[in-house]
Amino acid sequence: MRTLPFTLKLPFGDRPLEWDNYIVRTLSSMQGQYFDQAAYSSLLAADDQLLYEVYEILVPKVEGELLHGVSIVHPGKVGNEYFMTKGHFHDVLETGEVYYCMRGTGMMVMETPEGDSQVLGMSAGEVLYVPPRWAHRSVNTNATEDLVMFFIYPGNAGHNYGTIEQKGFRKLVVEQDGQPTIIDNPRWQNAS
Amino acid sequence: MRTLPFTLKLPFGDRPLEWDNYIVRTLSSMQGQYFDQAAYSSLLAADDQLLYEVYEILVPKVEGELLHGVSIVHPGKVGNEYFMTKGHFHDVLETGEVYYCMRGTGMMVMETPEGDSQVLGMSAGEVLYVPPRWAHRSVNTNATEDLVMFFIYPGNAGHNYGTIEQKGFRKLVVEQDGQPTIIDNPRWQNAS
Repeated sequence: MRTLPFTLKLPFGDRPLEWDNYIVRTLSSMQGQYFDQAAYSSLLAADDQLLYEVYEILVPKVEGELLHGVSIVHPGKVGNEYFMTKGHFHDVLETGEVYYCMRGTGMMVMETPEGDSQVLGMSAGEVLYVPPRWAHRSVNTNATEDLVMFFIYPGNAGHNYGTIEQKGFRKLVVEQDGQPTIIDNPRWQNAS
Repeated sequence: MRTLPFTLKLPFGDRPLEWDNYIVRTLSSMQGQYFDQAAYSSLLAADDQLLYEVYEILVPKVEGELLHGVSIVHPGKVGNEYFMTKGHFHDVLETGEVYYCMRGTGMMVMETPEGDSQVLGMSAGEVLYVPPRWAHRSVNTNATEDLVMFFIYPGNAGHNYGTIEQKGFRKLVVEQDGQPTIIDNPRWQNAS
């Protein structure tokens, strides 16, 4: 746990060494998240491949501290739906998050508990702000390049995966005619 | 005031256009901050030159939001002391700040109310973390290049310039034999 001032070199897509906590999400951790269940099962049977990685700095998880790190979403698709993060609300709903896109291109899928929805594109050199109350998921829409993002959120925010794991997001990002396209999630309306 | 998700292109030392709030600090706003008062007066008499600029995004200044923006400290010295920001504690002392150094080289001078002191170097591509309770000032130690940093801090943090304006920091960064050098602030001990 880091409690004194520190500096760290941000990794631009290379594997960082100095980071405190390393999280790996493979295909098997995304059960039920992809629209095309047949494509998902078929891919998983072939290989439980790496979808994304998160490198976190460990500072105290309390209000006033700022948790930060780097996420790397690899390129790929399940059916025609791009590789993406699980997505979550914050446990403390009234907390936001800042993303700085270091490499690649992608989209951030966001929605509020009240049903407001936004999907914003992002590319290297851009900042994206997720205000308090907005669930968020990063999607890598690039065919060949990693989506590498530096993220910062309040130390007390926490993660709430529950409702997203059950219902998904209202919007999906899929490839149509070779282009990233935002569509309504056909499975969302039927979720209980 | 921005309350919905948004993206912005981060400016790499170019003058940004999209930002909501623009703060300029010239030499005259740094009265009493530089060790060499004669050099300060002489420089100021010649030209009230630009020391640094801050571009802020306006999100609500409440807990859970994340204020962010870009600061640009220009190269230069007052006597042998480098151009620097005013420096401050946060009003809500128990709030930290994340810096991402986008361009240039510099040092962050930090201290706590209890008298702990740290000065850390930083260069392009590095993250620097200022934990809660640490006052902080950015110093541009590069002879020719701007020090450009992306900063993020809690929406409710606020700025407290008072004690720093009165007493300065315990440490100064000055040029000695052509090198950035950390020295004790001779004027700090005598401050009331």
